[in-house]
Amino acid sequence: MNTEQSLSSLLPKSWYNLVPELDFKIPKPLHPVEERLASVEDFNWLWSSEALRIEFLQGEYASNPWIDIPQPVLEAYSQYRPTQLYRARGLEKHIGTRAEIYLKREDQNPAGSHKLNTALPQAFYAKSDKGVTTLVTDTGAGQWGSALSMASSRFGLATKVFMTRKSYDDKPYRRFMMRMTGAEVYPSPSSITRLGRQLLEQDPDQPGSLGIGMSEAIELVRSSQDHRLALGCMSYYAVLHQTVIGIETKMQLEALSRRPTYLLGCVGGGSNFAGFIGPFVKDKVGGSNMTFVACEPENIATLTSGDYRYDWADYGKHTPRISMYTLGHDFQPPKIHSGGLRYHGKTPVLSALVKNKIVATKTVSQPSVFEAGQILLKTEGILPAPESSHAIKAALDIASNANAQDVIVVCLSGHGYLDLKGYADELSLE
Amino acid sequence: MNTEQSLSSLLPKSWYNLVPELDFKIPKPLHPVEERLASVEDFNWLWSSEALRIEFLQGEYASNPWIDIPQPVLEAYSQYRPTQLYRARGLEKHIGTRAEIYLKREDQNPAGSHKLNTALPQAFYAKSDKGVTTLVTDTGAGQWGSALSMASSRFGLATKVFMTRKSYDDKPYRRFMMRMTGAEVYPSPSSITRLGRQLLEQDPDQPGSLGIGMSEAIELVRSSQDHRLALGCMSYYAVLHQTVIGIETKMQLEALSRRPTYLLGCVGGGSNFAGFIGPFVKDKVGGSNMTFVACEPENIATLTSGDYRYDWADYGKHTPRISMYTLGHDFQPPKIHSGGLRYHGKTPVLSALVKNKIVATKTVSQPSVFEAGQILLKTEGILPAPESSHAIKAALDIASNANAQDVIVVCLSGHGYLDLKGYADELSLE
Repeated sequence: MNTEQSLSSLLPKSWYNLVPELDFKIPKPLHPVEERLASVEDFNWLWSSEALRIEFLQGEYASNPWIDIPQPVLEAYSQYRPTQLYRARGLEKHIGTRAEIYLKREDQNPAGSHKLNTALPQAFYAKSDKGVTTLVTDTGAGQWGSALSMASSRFGLATKVFMTRKSYDDKPYRRFMMRMTGAEVYPSPSSITRLGRQLLEQDPDQPGSLGIGMSEAIELVRSSQDHRLALGCMSYYAVLHQTVIGIETKMQLEALSRRPTYLLGCVGGGSNFAGFIGPFVKDKVGGSNMTFVACEPENIATLTSGDYRYDWADYGKHTPRISMYTLGHDFQPPKIHSGGLRYHGKTPVLSALVKNKIVATKTVSQPSVFEAGQILLKTEGILPAPESSHAIKAALDIASNANAQDVIVVCLSGHGYLDLKGYADELSLE
Repeated sequence: MNTEQSLSSLLPKSWYNLVPELDFKIPKPLHPVEERLASVEDFNWLWSSEALRIEFLQGEYASNPWIDIPQPVLEAYSQYRPTQLYRARGLEKHIGTRAEIYLKREDQNPAGSHKLNTALPQAFYAKSDKGVTTLVTDTGAGQWGSALSMASSRFGLATKVFMTRKSYDDKPYRRFMMRMTGAEVYPSPSSITRLGRQLLEQDPDQPGSLGIGMSEAIELVRSSQDHRLALGCMSYYAVLHQTVIGIETKMQLEALSRRPTYLLGCVGGGSNFAGFIGPFVKDKVGGSNMTFVACEPENIATLTSGDYRYDWADYGKHTPRISMYTLGHDFQPPKIHSGGLRYHGKTPVLSALVKNKIVATKTVSQPSVFEAGQILLKTEGILPAPESSHAIKAALDIASNANAQDVIVVCLSGHGYLDLKGYADELSLE
């Protein structure tokens, strides 16, 4: 029964804390400039206290694989979760595959993507810290900024968003969404930070990147005692919160008596994908026949052709140095339409899973991404975000050569209604 | 369980045929120009044979209140139905009401609105007629055109859409959606019909209307033997198919042990609203304390201040004359942002329900509509179509003075992601 009553039993009450369950260690974060480990004290001006506990895996995060979801967050989740696990029969028929294809429908969430899953707890925890009034963040395509703005507004905080200038210009509907929910939105690089002014001076047409936006957000937080940083990906807290996706998927597949053979998702910073596969990792390591595929743009192929090393999460080198696959913190991403993927690094836990060969990677070309999105629209009436279409494209390829026993599950991270200009450009529509 | 398996038992297998159940008669359609009843033979060039049987209430439609949904349509429905009945706790809290508010989530359907519910059977039935290759239609905001294009593509038909020029210009994303799914889209008035050329000659900036688009569609069908007309509203078949909304709502409320006291929806032609309340009419007539409220724009207040009389459904006087509330077939609707409501008439069955005082009406101003949509976005993360926001505004007003026992149910007919320019204009967002 598709109502709150019958669904409540399927809403996860805990997040899955993957790190203590792994049989390898994730290298600890280093201080931004000094040759030592980073500490909570280095960053208590930047993050809320709970975010710090997660990032530095303190307290229960150090060892407990199941972390209680606080009641106010659970209430907010229950308004839209569990999301649907959708059998894409139209797509299967189109491909002529004997495999089954399922889509985990995060595109139907409020704000249009998986991002709300972490925006809600981040806003809740920040509000719990005395004196905090405002969350500051960066956003690419705007999915994250919209979600944070809604979550902040729910818990009584203000929101300031640095939106990558290319997306700010290309996706006006996204900034309208953020402003409708009360956020202040600045195109990044902006004139309100020192870094922004410096970059604009060098190049007034600087298109921005998630790394630059993050530096601007950090600069603003540093100058305002009641501001804190929120991050839509890269941080471990974002991965932790996104495990609701994987936990639900696992329960839903079990209810259908299905075992997944492929789990696919797109990766920008990596949080939706890591949260999606996280709860399945132990099964795979334990011997289950399961392939995890992280899908990324061929011209921002961080996991496929980046270096695995310590690097900063932001352009301006303010964050801890974290161990990850990276194209370099000063990498200038090409102007692709998938604004959410215009980023140089991948979250440490996902990077480590790739390094340890638990996760495979696949690169996808921009034209094939938009064609895949069009196929999903035509066959299922579902318009995926270009970001999510990377995984759809990979699923099409896998399904074409799949066996009848194969169960392909794709995390459909967001909808593409606000990306139709990108589709129109790529598919030459008038 | 939010998966196909557990939901299938809640998917209606029949539509509800309201007319034979009413204790009054709906005046029969008249010939467009001759002083006699219209007949099936007058229109077999225009509509598919099944559409004609419904429109003229022949065969089982004459007396059977339950009409089997054909298996291929049922399969298509099962991909997205039943839709969620969503308890809007955030909205309730914002208003401070003691009543409960539920939203029937047709906005999450493929193509973004209730329209797919009738597009699918219309395409299926047209395809069943030998020699038919193409469905032709008009669309306002583009919700209907997108849905028809998807449905036609599913059943192997082509689609041609006359899109009201104002919406064509204001809502480029909608025409992209239609073209992505394979439709040919013409701004209406267009240069491909005689009527269109004539209107453009008189006024090259003619913004169009649904009545003009319908006339152009009919003109094209008349000149092409393998084309048939599809209509997103006004026709009784559209109302019949939309009763899946009401049937599901009734079952979902029963599962929650709730009795509705208010059922609200917006009305353009009236099909989503009539399909929503249809299955509840007998209960109300039988004595249940239930108020049905049809919500319309204050400057296109057909039900509230139009005449109840025979009139044409289209500007060019090609359709049967039908008994309805109307502002006149040549009414030039003002350029409001809710393109789906820019129409002069209301479907006969709904008009008769209003005439017989079974349905109440309410007019809503354009600014208050967009404010109501913003409130829903802020409190629930749901962005309604401006059309649907008419009903949200009415629900806000009713809930403000409601009792604790009241159960207010709103048909959320479509999402507003492609209407963000309208929101930005009305709410002065940059």
